[in-house]
Amino acid sequence: MERIALFAGSFDPFTVAHFSLAKRASALFDRVIIAVGENVQKHPLFSTELRVKLIQKATANLENVCVKSYAGLTGNFATENGAKFLLRGIRSPNEFDIERNLAWNNARLYPEIETVYLQIEAENAAVSSSAVREILKFGGDISSMVPPSILGDILNATEKF
Amino acid sequence: MERIALFAGSFDPFTVAHFSLAKRASALFDRVIIAVGENVQKHPLFSTELRVKLIQKATANLENVCVKSYAGLTGNFATENGAKFLLRGIRSPNEFDIERNLAWNNARLYPEIETVYLQIEAENAAVSSSAVREILKFGGDISSMVPPSILGDILNATEKF
Amino acid sequence: MERIALFAGSFDPFTVAHFSLAKRASALFDRVIIAVGENVQKHPLFSTELRVKLIQKATANLENVCVKSYAGLTGNFATENGAKFLLRGIRSPNEFDIERNLAWNNARLYPEIETVYLQIEAENAAVSSSAVREILKFGGDISSMVPPSILGDILNATEKF
Amino acid sequence: MERIALFAGSFDPFTVAHFSLAKRASALFDRVIIAVGENVQKHPLFSTELRVKLIQKATANLENVCVKSYAGLTGNFATENGAKFLLRGIRSPNEFDIERNLAWNNARLYPEIETVYLQIEAENAAVSSSAVREILKFGGDISSMVPPSILGDILNATEKF
Amino acid sequence: MERIALFAGSFDPFTVAHFSLAKRASALFDRVIIAVGENVQKHPLFSTELRVKLIQKATANLENVCVKSYAGLTGNFATENGAKFLLRGIRSPNEFDIERNLAWNNARLYPEIETVYLQIEAENAAVSSSAVREILKFGGDISSMVPPSILGDILNATEKF
Amino acid sequence: MERIALFAGSFDPFTVAHFSLAKRASALFDRVIIAVGENVQKHPLFSTELRVKLIQKATANLENVCVKSYAGLTGNFATENGAKFLLRGIRSPNEFDIERNLAWNNARLYPEIETVYLQIEAENAAVSSSAVREILKFGGDISSMVPPSILGDILNATEKF
Repeated sequence: MERIALFAGSFDPFTVAHFSLAKRASALFDRVIIAVGENVQKHPLFSTELRVKLIQKATANLENVCVKSYAGLTGNFATENGAKFLLRGIRSPNEFDIERNLAWNNARLYPEIETVYLQIEAENAAVSSSAVREILKFGGDISSMVPPSILGDILNATEKF
Repeated sequence: MERIALFAGSFDPFTVAHFSLAKRASALFDRVIIAVGENVQKHPLFSTELRVKLIQKATANLENVCVKSYAGLTGNFATENGAKFLLRGIRSPNEFDIERNLAWNNARLYPEIETVYLQIEAENAAVSSSAVREILKFGGDISSMVPPSILGDILNATEKF
Repeated sequence: MERIALFAGSFDPFTVAHFSLAKRASALFDRVIIAVGENVQKHPLFSTELRVKLIQKATANLENVCVKSYAGLTGNFATENGAKFLLRGIRSPNEFDIERNLAWNNARLYPEIETVYLQIEAENAAVSSSAVREILKFGGDISSMVPPSILGDILNATEKF
Repeated sequence: MERIALFAGSFDPFTVAHFSLAKRASALFDRVIIAVGENVQKHPLFSTELRVKLIQKATANLENVCVKSYAGLTGNFATENGAKFLLRGIRSPNEFDIERNLAWNNARLYPEIETVYLQIEAENAAVSSSAVREILKFGGDISSMVPPSILGDILNATEKF
Repeated sequence: MERIALFAGSFDPFTVAHFSLAKRASALFDRVIIAVGENVQKHPLFSTELRVKLIQKATANLENVCVKSYAGLTGNFATENGAKFLLRGIRSPNEFDIERNLAWNNARLYPEIETVYLQIEAENAAVSSSAVREILKFGGDISSMVPPSILGDILNATEKF
Repeated sequence: MERIALFAGSFDPFTVAHFSLAKRASALFDRVIIAVGENVQKHPLFSTELRVKLIQKATANLENVCVKSYAGLTGNFATENGAKFLLRGIRSPNEFDIERNLAWNNARLYPEIETVYLQIEAENAAVSSSAVREILKFGGDISSMVPPSILGDILNATEKF
């Protein structure tokens, strides 16, 4: 049976850490769906459409990776897409504390879905979308934090804000 | 002297983890006051009145447990009610890091009040009000996360939102 | 029914942090049994007998506190003594991570026994028996770390090593 | 290409938490090698041979799982066996702190090997080999902590100590 | 070369923990710049101007300490002021987890700037601006949490809210 | 007054992470004393003499850094050497939890001594002496983990074990 993983997140924007996870997941699973959450409560810096487009561009060379957007519970979207695995990246003990609770609650609602963790590599352990947004806000240099292929698009989009 | 514990929180809504803590506290203390905080800054999903009613219903069989609402500093409300103990549930190291600071600051302001911790049991370690609210929002199944006696009330109240 | 707590540990030696826990527990429970573990694998600095004697001396004024030694599983000793509560002191998130597992395993073996945590007060949060032993080894000043009533006994006993 | 995972550990003894990880890994990977480390510095309670035999018995129904013993660096043994994935179970933030360093150092020495984490399910989050050994030592009940198929063997082996 | 440290924060308001850090930093560095961030997104309780004035008053006796306000990236402001060191206070493991990521990201953008940590002393480990604001909101006693020299000013300013 | 820092540790052996800390400390302090602890209870892999020699060779270009060995309490040795600062490297939240207690206890015994933390850079966050020893034991490649200038000496010394 095909092993499909859902890699859900805000990706606001997609970073080199996200890219590394997607690439490594593409070797672990038969298929990886990057799922961009349209979280109505938060105010994303980049629109859902743009986030999807940026990730598609950045992962164009990863053949078994596709990008979708979704609303609602992540476990529901995984089930609808036949994904038996939720991929999560973890970088710090604190983050694992939060992730663990999410996973335990998911296991309660979706017992057939497994959460699988990959670790962020050391040199990118502090790269996060929120750090990128903060640096962008003040015109700092984000070039080492996002995939080179989408750096220009991110800077262009930000100029308009 | 009667040993009275104040179990303060948002309880938005009351969960099986809260119930377990209340039940176990009722064996440890002579009297337990569940204190529902009317926190003006946050926007609770359930009104203070409803939260109080739900907890009263869920804990109806625990004879030495009563429910009140309050505003202001928890330590003040404890003092007003003759409670020398603050009951806190902890589930994770992160949470203890936060709780510890609260307790140390309370000890500074109310040296005669003692903070007592009970641990959430393993199977409910991830159950939280915020998880329940998130699942409710998207119509997921919360039936294993809240006391059966108030499940219907919670679902009814949510339908109206 | 009488509420009895077992406060088990190595107490090698008893510190001001232990004393504070014992004193506060004596207000929370009807009776507190301080249980000195004869752990055959570790090499305690102080003999079991001396540890018991030191604690008895330090807690002489706490009327509902007594001291015993034990071997074997803590839960068994609690059961034999009618103690429905295990008292644990916690000082840091790391320590809670360890304690939580102990408590969850105890809950598996002794479902009728409850683990209750009290927090070490801020100014003594770093005081530990191992710190005292390390300082003693090199002749440093432990006078603020152990109860004044047993400081002399500890120093006398250490001279003989 | 076949995806092979190495699940290395002491397994002294194999627990229900280990079994759960092995079973879930068998659905994630094409092949799982459980690798029992012959760690010369520690004094295992059960011999390497017995540990291998117990795991083989407990995992007999998992078709794509096999058991081996090894000495030396785990990364070397993975490489020798064509395993591109190291499977690790994590249960707590503290444990992740340690695992993260192991994984980062492995990434330095074996850049082609990926560490993959699965989380222990909530109800077994505190089950560990060391807890089992501690309880065994004092004749406590380990029946909920080890796979039923090997409980008898473990108790028999322990009687002889 | 003169060693200059930037001690940046919200200081909303300045606490005894901040004062202790500033004082100790003044012995470690040749010059310490306390930099009050004008964070446009948050709604500070005290205006930037007042925060600067309060800190100037509280640190008047520390000769090599000055106070400035700034907007934008902290690393930029440090560079503009010739500060090669960022001073941070840490009180808990959780906080270090967050600080570490900030520092790693700063090291990426400003490789010539070093982050230096001083620890909050035990008795003030739980004192924070947010705790002070919470207590102020309900008229609690903050006198042990802020420097005596500015207690009156803080209370006066709060009365007007 | 000259600012002197004591950087104490086992350094068994000295790693690139230690070197980075020493180098950065040499820019922060007027003088840095690297203090190699002769810990009688542990069995170091490298003799005290060799550890001192290796560090001297590795730090030969850092003019204001010297190396000494010591026994006894670190705070005593700092006092004897006029060091008012203890330098510590931290890499993870767990480590900070331990360090914090050491620092709080030191502050109790040596109130005039300040503990100052520098963080390990991201790419070396997992490098530790114990990892080096483990890899050395099995003939793995440590070349990226120790300073190039002493790699040969470490390998030569290890061959003789």
